[in-house]
Amino acid sequence: MESVGGSHQNWLAWMRRALQLASLAEGHTSPNPLVGAVVLDAEGRLVGEGFHARAGEPHAEPVALDQAGDAARGGTIIVTLEPCCHQGRTPPCTEAILAAGVRRVVVALTDPDPRVAGGGLQRLRDAGLEVISGVLAAEAAHQNRAFLHRVRTGRPWGVLKWAMSLDGRTALPNGESQWISGPSARSWVHGMRAQCDAVIVGGGTVRADDPLLTSRGRRSPEPLRVVFSRSLDLPAGAQIWDQQLASTLLGYPIQAESALSADLRAVVQAQGVAMEALDASEPELLLTALSKRGCNRVLWECGPGLAAAAIQQGCVQEIEAVIAPKLLGGELARTPLADFGFTAMDQVLQLRDQDVMRLGDDLLMRAQLT
Amino acid sequence: MESVGGSHQNWLAWMRRALQLASLAEGHTSPNPLVGAVVLDAEGRLVGEGFHARAGEPHAEPVALDQAGDAARGGTIIVTLEPCCHQGRTPPCTEAILAAGVRRVVVALTDPDPRVAGGGLQRLRDAGLEVISGVLAAEAAHQNRAFLHRVRTGRPWGVLKWAMSLDGRTALPNGESQWISGPSARSWVHGMRAQCDAVIVGGGTVRADDPLLTSRGRRSPEPLRVVFSRSLDLPAGAQIWDQQLASTLLGYPIQAESALSADLRAVVQAQGVAMEALDASEPELLLTALSKRGCNRVLWECGPGLAAAAIQQGCVQEIEAVIAPKLLGGELARTPLADFGFTAMDQVLQLRDQDVMRLGDDLLMRAQLT
Repeated sequence: MESVGGSHQNWLAWMRRALQLASLAEGHTSPNPLVGAVVLDAEGRLVGEGFHARAGEPHAEPVALDQAGDAARGGTIIVTLEPCCHQGRTPPCTEAILAAGVRRVVVALTDPDPRVAGGGLQRLRDAGLEVISGVLAAEAAHQNRAFLHRVRTGRPWGVLKWAMSLDGRTALPNGESQWISGPSARSWVHGMRAQCDAVIVGGGTVRADDPLLTSRGRRSPEPLRVVFSRSLDLPAGAQIWDQQLASTLLGYPIQAESALSADLRAVVQAQGVAMEALDASEPELLLTALSKRGCNRVLWECGPGLAAAAIQQGCVQEIEAVIAPKLLGGELARTPLADFGFTAMDQVLQLRDQDVMRLGDDLLMRAQLT
Repeated sequence: MESVGGSHQNWLAWMRRALQLASLAEGHTSPNPLVGAVVLDAEGRLVGEGFHARAGEPHAEPVALDQAGDAARGGTIIVTLEPCCHQGRTPPCTEAILAAGVRRVVVALTDPDPRVAGGGLQRLRDAGLEVISGVLAAEAAHQNRAFLHRVRTGRPWGVLKWAMSLDGRTALPNGESQWISGPSARSWVHGMRAQCDAVIVGGGTVRADDPLLTSRGRRSPEPLRVVFSRSLDLPAGAQIWDQQLASTLLGYPIQAESALSADLRAVVQAQGVAMEALDASEPELLLTALSKRGCNRVLWECGPGLAAAAIQQGCVQEIEAVIAPKLLGGELARTPLADFGFTAMDQVLQLRDQDVMRLGDDLLMRAQLT
């Protein structure tokens, strides 16, 4: 039996199922990772399934073990991330596994959280269980790339989204931009927001578009709406200050505080908008603050200046570009990104893992920054 | 038998074969259309195939009928375009069909050439043959869209091609543009040129890039290289004046003639570069001239100013945009198209029939202008 258990091959299908279970909570577990678990009895029959639904709720392992009950004894638990061995908001999962009498633990990824970091697997090995790790590790790392990135860098995974015409324009020369993309693409944006913990715009977008920035109910609670303003020159009547639909955070450099108008101060205080004073007007400082507020993944929906600054500070890991079958033209028309100062083709930013899908008449091209 | 013959359904597979035969000469038949033909004997067995290979060479029908010989008697000819009934460089195909003793003629499209225009089918009906037309007419019209467009408008079908980064840039702010796209896309461009009768650039492209503009031997003869220059301020040492690899035509407004430098005049005359003086510097006048020179399809490989002017004058029917997985950035970086003067989203140019394919790491998005 040792040799059967030891082969990764035997666990691929079950690990795929565990990854599938984990994905059901996509966008809802921050600051925690996505985790899914499957429990088999001693004869290898499926007796329990579970996933981590939301921070503060039970981890995947106890959910699956509870479903299995006594049938877990002598069986196997397949889990997408190393079980935790520390007391958090919930008890350590290693102890739940030992209590259930499971004989074998199959894991995709080691948990990079310094409170775990291999300690969970060691605890299980020390207790005499067979431990197999690294099964579908790449797939699991891709699924939890936002969480892993935050743990590694202290900043959430950044997704930069824009919609442009086939000739690379995000607005007409007069600033008009509604709507370049079609209804399917706009609906996709709402879904994308639902996968993120925060949606960030600059002051210019608030002034020009007065956006709502919600997922239109696809996520509950709605993602945090973040206005990143260098000047605090913002309209007091903007929709985004209304906190009934969704919460808003106003990020700004501490130096700008005196520029806050009495009108805006009154609205922000009355509505309970969160304020985040930063040492400087830097995207990376904003993201560090959002990481501390529990964000694993943020969506940049900003203009070319802030987008280019965010890229330059390593705050964007993924591009999602909607390309509409239209031609706008125009030397003065807005484009997705401001200057990087490149003077030779070998300096430009290379994207990888590019992929394309259709959104109605529009095309979505997504890629990761190298 | 009349009812069997009369149903389009019976002829779809054979018409597809005829279209396939026609496509073998793609890019080589101008100013003539693409035409393919299949001959079946009286029992419905394939006895002849043919296509029109090049202007001045035999039409598809006599090629297929020659192959069939006596077996054509009492049989059927399936042909993608109405047989001609006039004496051109070759004798009328209607007479060849009658001489072969064919009993039934199945056709996709009526020939819009005013010398034919239904007259070919009428001649065959009058002679007592069964004539079925309209079989796969849409497919046949798509295949011959360049020829049909030229007959309808007096101007060749225009394809506008560009390569840009994912943020819509065709060059860095300093003008550097080699290479945005990868080797597969550059090889695809050579193939695209081979499908066209002429490749058009503006003077700016000759000055900046000194391009060769050939299909790298994929078409023989190479497509005509056209330099469209408003000012005739062109380098006498440009590669494009060398007529050994390919022929070149210099199009310019008659008013600019006095600006032609002695150096350039000497080179152009020594090399035998064709000159086309136009009444004004208008893309549509250039295309009318190219139509008279037998061009069915031209490829615009020009900068944003000429590209926008060509679109505005209805000289572009199809866009082929290569999108590279790179970010260039830059307010001053070149984009595909100059201003159209649009001020509202309902004025912008809509594309249709958009399609996407991969070219190595790059993406090709193609669409037609409505």
